Amino acid sequence: MTKVPSTWYMEFTTPDTILQFAVKDVLYVGRSKYQRVEVVETVSFGKCLILDGKIQSCEKDEFIYHEALVHPAMILHPHPETVFIAGGGEGATLREVLAHKTVKKVVMVDIDAEVIDICRRFLPAHHQGSFDDPRVELLHQDAREYLAETREQFDVIIIDLPDPIEGGPAYLLYTQKFYQLLRSKLTAKGALALQAGSARLDDTKVCTAVNNTLKTIFPIVAICQTDIPSFGGTWGFSLASLKFDPLKLSSEEIDGRIAGRVGKRLDFYDGQTHQGLFFIPKYLRDAMARETMVITEAHPVFIPWY
Amino acid sequence: MTKVPSTWYMEFTTPDTILQFAVKDVLYVGRSKYQRVEVVETVSFGKCLILDGKIQSCEKDEFIYHEALVHPAMILHPHPETVFIAGGGEGATLREVLAHKTVKKVVMVDIDAEVIDICRRFLPAHHQGSFDDPRVELLHQDAREYLAETREQFDVIIIDLPDPIEGGPAYLLYTQKFYQLLRSKLTAKGALALQAGSARLDDTKVCTAVNNTLKTIFPIVAICQTDIPSFGGTWGFSLASLKFDPLKLSSEEIDGRIAGRVGKRLDFYDGQTHQGLFFIPKYLRDAMARETMVITEAHPVFIPWY
Amino acid sequence: MTKVPSTWYMEFTTPDTILQFAVKDVLYVGRSKYQRVEVVETVSFGKCLILDGKIQSCEKDEFIYHEALVHPAMILHPHPETVFIAGGGEGATLREVLAHKTVKKVVMVDIDAEVIDICRRFLPAHHQGSFDDPRVELLHQDAREYLAETREQFDVIIIDLPDPIEGGPAYLLYTQKFYQLLRSKLTAKGALALQAGSARLDDTKVCTAVNNTLKTIFPIVAICQTDIPSFGGTWGFSLASLKFDPLKLSSEEIDGRIAGRVGKRLDFYDGQTHQGLFFIPKYLRDAMARETMVITEAHPVFIPWY
Amino acid sequence: MTKVPSTWYMEFTTPDTILQFAVKDVLYVGRSKYQRVEVVETVSFGKCLILDGKIQSCEKDEFIYHEALVHPAMILHPHPETVFIAGGGEGATLREVLAHKTVKKVVMVDIDAEVIDICRRFLPAHHQGSFDDPRVELLHQDAREYLAETREQFDVIIIDLPDPIEGGPAYLLYTQKFYQLLRSKLTAKGALALQAGSARLDDTKVCTAVNNTLKTIFPIVAICQTDIPSFGGTWGFSLASLKFDPLKLSSEEIDGRIAGRVGKRLDFYDGQTHQGLFFIPKYLRDAMARETMVITEAHPVFIPWY
Repeated sequence: MTKVPSTWYMEFTTPDTILQFAVKDVLYVGRSKYQRVEVVETVSFGKCLILDGKIQSCEKDEFIYHEALVHPAMILHPHPETVFIAGGGEGATLREVLAHKTVKKVVMVDIDAEVIDICRRFLPAHHQGSFDDPRVELLHQDAREYLAETREQFDVIIIDLPDPIEGGPAYLLYTQKFYQLLRSKLTAKGALALQAGSARLDDTKVCTAVNNTLKTIFPIVAICQTDIPSFGGTWGFSLASLKFDPLKLSSEEIDGRIAGRVGKRLDFYDGQTHQGLFFIPKYLRDAMARETMVITEAHPVFIPWY
Repeated sequence: MTKVPSTWYMEFTTPDTILQFAVKDVLYVGRSKYQRVEVVETVSFGKCLILDGKIQSCEKDEFIYHEALVHPAMILHPHPETVFIAGGGEGATLREVLAHKTVKKVVMVDIDAEVIDICRRFLPAHHQGSFDDPRVELLHQDAREYLAETREQFDVIIIDLPDPIEGGPAYLLYTQKFYQLLRSKLTAKGALALQAGSARLDDTKVCTAVNNTLKTIFPIVAICQTDIPSFGGTWGFSLASLKFDPLKLSSEEIDGRIAGRVGKRLDFYDGQTHQGLFFIPKYLRDAMARETMVITEAHPVFIPWY
Repeated sequence: MTKVPSTWYMEFTTPDTILQFAVKDVLYVGRSKYQRVEVVETVSFGKCLILDGKIQSCEKDEFIYHEALVHPAMILHPHPETVFIAGGGEGATLREVLAHKTVKKVVMVDIDAEVIDICRRFLPAHHQGSFDDPRVELLHQDAREYLAETREQFDVIIIDLPDPIEGGPAYLLYTQKFYQLLRSKLTAKGALALQAGSARLDDTKVCTAVNNTLKTIFPIVAICQTDIPSFGGTWGFSLASLKFDPLKLSSEEIDGRIAGRVGKRLDFYDGQTHQGLFFIPKYLRDAMARETMVITEAHPVFIPWY
Repeated sequence: MTKVPSTWYMEFTTPDTILQFAVKDVLYVGRSKYQRVEVVETVSFGKCLILDGKIQSCEKDEFIYHEALVHPAMILHPHPETVFIAGGGEGATLREVLAHKTVKKVVMVDIDAEVIDICRRFLPAHHQGSFDDPRVELLHQDAREYLAETREQFDVIIIDLPDPIEGGPAYLLYTQKFYQLLRSKLTAKGALALQAGSARLDDTKVCTAVNNTLKTIFPIVAICQTDIPSFGGTWGFSLASLKFDPLKLSSEEIDGRIAGRVGKRLDFYDGQTHQGLFFIPKYLRDAMARETMVITEAHPVFIPWY
């Protein structure tokens, strides 16, 4: 057992499941105004951002998460020029958005300036300089407040927030009211993408409730899912749209749009991956169908054990 | 922290990743002639069979594994009457095969009679009495030896073996030679399904090597994958076929065949799930494309850290 | 790593330290009126009683704990006939008390009848039938209430309670007021023994506060300590006395008293062990000397992270 | 559970027990010519040196280990001027030796120069500049070879080596033959101190075998023990002597010698602590008495699971 690694990252992915990754280095441990912030380098997944004890993304598999979050919505829109991002402190959501040559302006609002500073410093492979792109307007305030006050509308909105934790910074952004606000800020062909939490068989509540709540607001709502290894299983993403349906895009159409619009190599997303993302397993479709909860401020949804 | 569960199942899914599940009960701990055998009841996944320290299947999510292993091959075949199963001691692979009304005979060969006895006793929700079905012939011997000697051929062959561990009972069944033998035992429209090991981004070696080796033997080889939560991520299944291509089956065709042939409710597999299974992510297609290893007895593949 | 045990007991002994023991079996998991109750069989320490996620005692090393708790006080008293025990649900404190031939009556008050039932059933090696000794009066009520109402006095009082956890059943029995009550229930040469919590270098707060509080009530107070492996380190026991000083007992005197009074073999305690128990390391004496806290109901002491 | 620390040091202290400490930082991870070397900063115990996956000593509790190892032998000798140290790469054994004003010369032989470089760099609180003391001669070679060749004799010899691991650098220094060599290098009133491995109830084999082997060579052998929290329990130290018996030193005599000879404050060792160290529990005396193994190169002792 001298071969067992000495240092481990440990995360309760639910109250009854723990994930551990061997650690090479601890790069940052601190507390911002809003949350506990850590950057840890793991053997299997490289440098990872951890907020309030939960991995947000890791160097080696963040491409899966960020490509799955960003590209279905961007590709669905016929010509996305303006994009709004809530959260996404690592800068990798921004990176994927900026890869679309159609994009003229991105407003990114992340309440926690300290997290962004830490990511800029410790996670260069995540942001790859995206914060310095002249198309980007980066703001540190409450995303709800910003959207409530702005007169702007966006072709694509991407919500890349931590899971809703009681007392955490994000849970009010997981409500019907917030989704109504988001709808009002989309242009006519607009699409909204959200990270929607775990879609793992034993932990689908947030995901199904988000999906159900979105359906009360948007004409077209689809859920997609894929395995994010450093999250310990399948993750769900919601795609809500005012006009176009992601289930009706053929692989060839998608590959053509990527070739025409995206100025870099993608490692996860393409036409075939799109089909795999949106053809979700029957048990998850069934769980979505059974869900009746509509998330409101009076009845919020939380990852229950935090 | 009084709320942290006291007892946990721990598994090194790779040398650098650990998965832990809260435990309700330990039902069996022993050692058969071939391997360490344990049955543990977890909070999240119910009763789990563990061989040589690796979960084989758990009550709550085994339907994903067994439906993904069995039904694509069974549905691909136009009318499967005879089926051979190697391994599958829990009896759940058998259960899914027997659900097909076309099936007249199943030969199941599992070398470890003790494992089957333990599963019969402790895992009734897995086998659901399948061992007592009159269509079943259950043998306890080396599957290679049985197949080498038999003159029978089968419409579908399903290989449901533990991962290849150095010194373990299964690794010689992960070789080109064995796959040649399997091909010779298939009828003309026959299909072969294998559990092919982890397809998780950080742990795809066995899966890609199996796929590459199968391609040296079979005219049609497809890999499919889905998340098995109790395995800690995405799992790969190979489907090798002499005549029909699973990528050419429409969802409607699949749903029609299920309706016509399968005498029970499926919770995982249907036409849409089939598409999600076989439309695998780009990184996994790329890993398959890069793989050059052909597994032979002289150059076997092992889960490297065991 | 197939040799790594599959199932483990896990305990946070502080918020920053975890102890894990390989598990052979889970014998009982439940919740009494007062606390979470588990009985787990570990490889290294046999069957263990766990209350609210903390090991109370284990089969293989409970002799250290119970002999260290009971015998110094019993031996210090010149002729103990009446003994009061608070807590001690496993029956092993009772077992050690009953081994003293001078004892005519033991009143044991443990509020949690369910715990005692579980111990009687699952921990026979702990109690060894002690509950059936005719000298024993076993009551299930609040120990404070019993003592406040009784007119009896006792030669020796033994307090064998779980650590003080916020919201747990025991913390009001870790106060100056309770210690005053205890003093009033001792006969003239009486001695009081308490399990006083961890005495491990990094976790001495409860132990030093108990010691300091006792010194405000009793003329003679001594702390002793020894390693209890299943507790993860050194454990403290307080011995408060009205007349005799345990530091003045010679090894020979102790061995003589044991030979004359104790009707069974002791595996831990004897004259030499007594010296080792009471000659505590300098850092612990220093921590005791620095402690100023007097525990009251208004200012209780808790294991801080529960 | 957001309050659970994210990063943990994990050590199998036996095959069936795991100790975990929350980690603040990983300072060094590497491999020297002889062993895996890590320096990790834990929350509870500060900076720790880890060799081959086993903690060697930690900032916060190393004073217990090093004072228990060094001072009993140094104080036992009437006037120690020359000291030999084998191992002790952290420099803390050296630090304690140098605190004795009688010392004129210390030869320290540690085979692993890289470990010492790492300790000098990352563990200044351990060595406190001791390597630069002009009385020190520091050599990097095999301690056996050095002693076999030197004509020097020493008043005190201190063996501060890692536990004997199969294939590790230290196990040949845990043999009767080596102890014979050590005896021949002691001056007439010489004393030998060794770290002798775990003395924890469930893990005493190395300690009792070392003790038994020493008794075949030395006229006076005593074992002492104390809890080292970062080692997960009680640790054993052997004191072998040619002339004086540590059990016959009174507390007052010890305190007098410390006051006269030791030029710094001790936090662990004094006269009372000495008694606590050498009055070992009955079960450990019994285990010593039962031990019959004499360690030879043909029959070495290993920590069995490594």
